Amino acid sequence: MSNDLPNDEFRAALHRAADLAADYLDGVAEYPVLPRVQPGEVTASLPAAPPAEGEPMERILDDYQRLIEPAMTHWNHPGFMAYFSITGSGPGIVGETLAATLNVNAMLWRTSPAAVELERLVCDWLRQMLDLPEIFQGHINDTASSSTLLALAAARHRQALQLKDRPRHDVRQHGLFGAPPMSVYTSDQAHSSVDKAAITLGLGLDGVRRVASDEDFRLDPAALAAAVAEDRAAGRLPIAVVATVGTTSTTSIDPLEPILEICRREDLWLHVDGAYGGSAGICPEYRELMRGMEGADSIVINPHKWLFVPVDCSVLWLRDEEELKEAFSLVPEYLKTGDTGVTNLMDFGPQLGRRFRALKMWMVFRSFGVEGLRRRIREHCRWARELAERIDADPHFEVSAPVPFSLVCFRALDGADGPDEDGEAQDRFNRRLMEAINADGTIFLSHTVLRDRYVLRLAIGNLRTTEEFVQDAWRLIQETAERLRREGS
Amino acid sequence: MSNDLPNDEFRAALHRAADLAADYLDGVAEYPVLPRVQPGEVTASLPAAPPAEGEPMERILDDYQRLIEPAMTHWNHPGFMAYFSITGSGPGIVGETLAATLNVNAMLWRTSPAAVELERLVCDWLRQMLDLPEIFQGHINDTASSSTLLALAAARHRQALQLKDRPRHDVRQHGLFGAPPMSVYTSDQAHSSVDKAAITLGLGLDGVRRVASDEDFRLDPAALAAAVAEDRAAGRLPIAVVATVGTTSTTSIDPLEPILEICRREDLWLHVDGAYGGSAGICPEYRELMRGMEGADSIVINPHKWLFVPVDCSVLWLRDEEELKEAFSLVPEYLKTGDTGVTNLMDFGPQLGRRFRALKMWMVFRSFGVEGLRRRIREHCRWARELAERIDADPHFEVSAPVPFSLVCFRALDGADGPDEDGEAQDRFNRRLMEAINADGTIFLSHTVLRDRYVLRLAIGNLRTTEEFVQDAWRLIQETAERLRREGS
Repeated sequence: MSNDLPNDEFRAALHRAADLAADYLDGVAEYPVLPRVQPGEVTASLPAAPPAEGEPMERILDDYQRLIEPAMTHWNHPGFMAYFSITGSGPGIVGETLAATLNVNAMLWRTSPAAVELERLVCDWLRQMLDLPEIFQGHINDTASSSTLLALAAARHRQALQLKDRPRHDVRQHGLFGAPPMSVYTSDQAHSSVDKAAITLGLGLDGVRRVASDEDFRLDPAALAAAVAEDRAAGRLPIAVVATVGTTSTTSIDPLEPILEICRREDLWLHVDGAYGGSAGICPEYRELMRGMEGADSIVINPHKWLFVPVDCSVLWLRDEEELKEAFSLVPEYLKTGDTGVTNLMDFGPQLGRRFRALKMWMVFRSFGVEGLRRRIREHCRWARELAERIDADPHFEVSAPVPFSLVCFRALDGADGPDEDGEAQDRFNRRLMEAINADGTIFLSHTVLRDRYVLRLAIGNLRTTEEFVQDAWRLIQETAERLRREGS
Repeated sequence: MSNDLPNDEFRAALHRAADLAADYLDGVAEYPVLPRVQPGEVTASLPAAPPAEGEPMERILDDYQRLIEPAMTHWNHPGFMAYFSITGSGPGIVGETLAATLNVNAMLWRTSPAAVELERLVCDWLRQMLDLPEIFQGHINDTASSSTLLALAAARHRQALQLKDRPRHDVRQHGLFGAPPMSVYTSDQAHSSVDKAAITLGLGLDGVRRVASDEDFRLDPAALAAAVAEDRAAGRLPIAVVATVGTTSTTSIDPLEPILEICRREDLWLHVDGAYGGSAGICPEYRELMRGMEGADSIVINPHKWLFVPVDCSVLWLRDEEELKEAFSLVPEYLKTGDTGVTNLMDFGPQLGRRFRALKMWMVFRSFGVEGLRRRIREHCRWARELAERIDADPHFEVSAPVPFSLVCFRALDGADGPDEDGEAQDRFNRRLMEAINADGTIFLSHTVLRDRYVLRLAIGNLRTTEEFVQDAWRLIQETAERLRREGS
């Protein structure tokens, strides 16, 4: 009756996948975090052309286990401490499996009532957990890059429509031709997604003013106010500020209250990028660090980062969702349904198609509970603080930035036998240190550059990472540095 | 040792999900295609606040089965014939389960070597199946809307950089400010994603020239040439043509060869939107209908539409991938890896994060094989042609557009007792007919408007739909129309 994989074969294959998944997560620590493969090696291990005839699932899953799984970077490894460490937790994997089975396109309420309503509901759950005002309505995008792009598109449309000293300009209709050049403000520590959004939206890199940050890597409100004034004087149209709660390099938190004050005075859209750090706001003591977020026009937080939902899952809340719809909504005849009082997710952005991402988020939140999520975040932050204390206590190292959440930036102070005024010898030592640590396979760190210095980043956020593992990681870092010192730089 | 769901509980939950999935697909035909829920009903059935403490997976999965599954529109139902009918086939569900387990962010080669290389490989497999030149390199996006947006962003950047009679303009750096107004050309039948891309990119709706189509709903090349000439004379900069292989309303195919000729003469970027219809190009006899596609600058086809891969999965090929990278690539310090000769998927668009979408595509293509995929597409097309013949043979109905693939557009000729010059009575009858059919629950149709007439669309593309089911659907349509005629309009 069916042209799909016969049901019994599908059932058997999915049960085998369930075991492959459980075995993998159970034993992932036995892999090196970074696979020992060279570029092109995976490609060379696979047929260059597709098979003419179908193959049995058993063989495909054998190949998966033999050729694909070992050649992955293991984001689930307890030693994955690079970038932002994440976990697509068990309940989330179950949710993704069922979402793939239902395989709806949640573009319209009619095409998936439960998917649309669950998306609204779980976004509201998270809003409540963050103690944000009820006015905020949320929906799910793939990534924070997309969420930020949408927020800036809404800002672009709104701001050009309410021009005061010159003719109003309808960006949706006329594009940017004939509009004054627009500026978006963000700190020199903000994520590159702001630049990419500006490129995409036709504002160009010129349209992003990177405002100086203070000694703790937080946007300097005085510098922001000055940049806005300068742009206005030069005939540019300031449209929005992107403030960050948890920057990528150091997880610094921009001072939202003074920024909000400037936005209100200057009539600017405030978008808060809390992609990683915002999640900690579910704990009142961390929410305190984000005071002012409730005054924003839009906020993005990625549950796929630090709320243990599988990628991709980025929640964007808007104070006035109509502003986003005005910028984007466009309903062709074949999608008119006559349903009233419903949300049609296609109205919120350029994509028409949408996966049922809410299901995994709902399952994770229910399985862990709010207190369970808070407990995990608090533990991660405590381990990071304690690690920072240990690093500070070691004369060979220094902590390079404050540790508000669960990321520790640090560097070794070795590498220079004599004067090293520009710090290059130390930088070389730290680069060698990171490469040596990553080659070991027990942990995986990434780096950044702060005030021109090469700095290592150790990010805690993986559910398989334990307190002991963090301590072991620190010992490995110390021992590796010790060995490099002995070997000479 | 782990803060995730304990491994034995995860294993048990995923095995239960496997059975839920297999049972669902086995019995989906017993549901009405459209769920019998009112807006707000799902929301009302669920707690408005998240649970403070974690809940057992058993209870969560019970709720899923009881409250979510029955409130979904069943895209897997054999009677789902609305929009474009799709299937996330069994092998694809297995692939999604494992991709969610690995939970990588495939932004860089280093962060997931096998995911990046498999993505390149499966896109190349599909390129071979479509008999496209080797020069085309592909990557996967979420939807065709995104793929088309990226293609137009690359076109925008390239075209402004090679301005001849005026100063070259670097859109990436300066945005659109100071650039001449730009135009994108597409037919009056093209997908709304072209308009949404133009809005997003800052070209505005003014930047989309909807060129007239011929009596068979195909873009008229003469009208295209005239529109380009008109725009040039008015000082606009023509940048790209979006030609469609399988429009959403009727699956008409734009004449690619004459369009390509115009693009070459006028130095325009040619983007081919084959989101749905392009998949049929894996069969040589359908590929023949798309001659000229091989000359495009970019092509999008969605394996999640008619190649049985779960949503989301849209492949974008570019003739010169560097042009896309030039428009978007931007690498912050913390993502510099020093790896050479590798693909970093983050270079191809605004999003940084990316799921491992290639795995499901690889599993589907291997499980079905190229011949298996061809056989399914050929069957769907044959059933559609045979249905069209039956409709044509019934004096109460007419086929409203040619049937090149597996979509049949048709309308009832009833509804008017007397003169109905503007066709409104017939339109009302057809609207009532569609509503009555959809209320029945056996099949789900959608509609469109062609030359101002309300037309029903019956799309075949679901792996659970059979030849008999299509015949039953036609009988249901006939009987419903007969009943409405008896009841009077």
